[in-house]
Amino acid sequence: MNIVHKRFTFTFCFILILIASIHARAERDPLASWNDGSAKQAIVAFVAAVTDKSSSDYVKPSERIAVFDNDGTLWSERPVYFQLFFAIDRVKELAPKHPEWKTKQPFKAVLENDMDALAATGEKGLIQLVMATHAGMTTVEFEQIVKKWISTAKHTRFKRLYNDLVYQPMLELLSYLRANDFKTFIVSGGGIEFMRPWVEKVYGIPPEQVIGSSIKTKFETRDGKPVLVRLPEIDFIDDKEEKPVGIHKFIGRRPIAAFGNSDGDLQMLQWATAANGKRFGLIVHHTDSKREYAYDRKSHVGRLDKALVEAKEKGWTVVDMKKDWKVIYPFESK
Amino acid sequence: MNIVHKRFTFTFCFILILIASIHARAERDPLASWNDGSAKQAIVAFVAAVTDKSSSDYVKPSERIAVFDNDGTLWSERPVYFQLFFAIDRVKELAPKHPEWKTKQPFKAVLENDMDALAATGEKGLIQLVMATHAGMTTVEFEQIVKKWISTAKHTRFKRLYNDLVYQPMLELLSYLRANDFKTFIVSGGGIEFMRPWVEKVYGIPPEQVIGSSIKTKFETRDGKPVLVRLPEIDFIDDKEEKPVGIHKFIGRRPIAAFGNSDGDLQMLQWATAANGKRFGLIVHHTDSKREYAYDRKSHVGRLDKALVEAKEKGWTVVDMKKDWKVIYPFESK
Repeated sequence: MNIVHKRFTFTFCFILILIASIHARAERDPLASWNDGSAKQAIVAFVAAVTDKSSSDYVKPSERIAVFDNDGTLWSERPVYFQLFFAIDRVKELAPKHPEWKTKQPFKAVLENDMDALAATGEKGLIQLVMATHAGMTTVEFEQIVKKWISTAKHTRFKRLYNDLVYQPMLELLSYLRANDFKTFIVSGGGIEFMRPWVEKVYGIPPEQVIGSSIKTKFETRDGKPVLVRLPEIDFIDDKEEKPVGIHKFIGRRPIAAFGNSDGDLQMLQWATAANGKRFGLIVHHTDSKREYAYDRKSHVGRLDKALVEAKEKGWTVVDMKKDWKVIYPFESK
Repeated sequence: MNIVHKRFTFTFCFILILIASIHARAERDPLASWNDGSAKQAIVAFVAAVTDKSSSDYVKPSERIAVFDNDGTLWSERPVYFQLFFAIDRVKELAPKHPEWKTKQPFKAVLENDMDALAATGEKGLIQLVMATHAGMTTVEFEQIVKKWISTAKHTRFKRLYNDLVYQPMLELLSYLRANDFKTFIVSGGGIEFMRPWVEKVYGIPPEQVIGSSIKTKFETRDGKPVLVRLPEIDFIDDKEEKPVGIHKFIGRRPIAAFGNSDGDLQMLQWATAANGKRFGLIVHHTDSKREYAYDRKSHVGRLDKALVEAKEKGWTVVDMKKDWKVIYPFESK
């Protein structure tokens, strides 16, 4: 095959594929679960601008980094962060080996299902809970523990696996961005190793594109084989001011789009949208008490106050879940 | 276009592209700078095995993670790590603002070009040097400093930019692995932000696939704009036992191939190759005093002792630079 032949072949194929894909695109809306309001329009306009080579807003594919908070942005976070349910279930499972927990907080509160007493133990209690349930095993063992829990434990209100409680419109948004050569990352206050075992399957985001809070690990050789042991020591808390720090540490370049739902995402949104060039910030506002939950300024979980004010000033898109989303969860449309 | 038409179009195109690419492949060897010895054969056999869907060694693309040390594996590291030259050049540039450095170690040694005195200040001196030259500015400012240095500073022996002193056979290996759907990462003891500004252009590895040593950063708002300030405080030293820790933290899954050159890479090689399934470990042995440098057991920079012994036991491939590489640097073949 000479060079002219080759060129012809490629050009010919390119045209055929183009026709087929235009055809395919016309067939379905990539953001089908979004009502045709200002939020959807803003997303589509942003993507059109940064992918249009003739536009001054054009961004080359390698720089198309989009960061997503997880709790309350990609899946629900009520009545409390799902990872707390995981810790609670772990405490109950481990309790027979720890008779001292019956009289010791925060474990006593967990074993007695006393959520008020648990809340009263504050951040200190929460950290104790995490260390007792997330550390002390190898990384491989912890992965298995998470996988087992996520495939069996169920949400009290919806009676469904936690992985069923992801937002269908956000799944479509992730796919839509990736189809436009964005690289999608999770930047969550949740545990990095609590997310990694399942996010690839559920969100299409590989483990190496997950940033989250972590505890330290230690390299050891056991029975001649190398292992990493999880230590009861905080390594990084990926929240608020630390989200831009985590983004810089893990990604090393500045995102052009950020998606969050609470004041914990404020600095991430500031960091992503303050640079020169076309940028996009979006906040998921929980306004649907019927299909999901309605909360913002006064909520203890996922409080949205300052970021909602700043969204107006900075021109970030605010999604009104009730109005903007045709369905919340994937199972609704099945 | 109905579904039958579409299928036909895609199948037809696929076959044409296949023919064209087989043709193209026959035209050139992707590892052209490698002599046809056991090292090259081992690389090719490994890649063939894990990419062959009919083989029991098959590894799906998402799991094809390959990790590379940088100093001494992808570019030279003699007479000392290039990042030390960067720090030395920075000290000289900053000296007018620091008259106290004239009498204070390790700065005095640097300003007097007294490498023995500098070495005598040990790890403590080195850390002081790094903090004085790598911290105190924003991340954006530091990136500019590195970019300027890497595009102007020259190596004393070769009188060339440091970026010219990368190994041509390793560049080919990186491309070869990526062409076979591997994701290539750097896992270096060097500074993560010292590498990120140039590795994408030089190695084709994006910033988000670089793991290295780091200092802490802090989120601040300056003149209403968010910045990240580099602090004189160590965050992570990515060497020896910490390399598997860094891999787990940043990538979150286990590599199936690891490439290093010194005892600092030993645990990374152990971690990558000890798991079940087909695995590959490779050590670059510096044996060419004429074209590059020859050193191993007794070297202070890039000591290779234990890992060389273990390579034999574990069946890792050892590259003999003198015998296995037709050229060392890209400029040799131009």
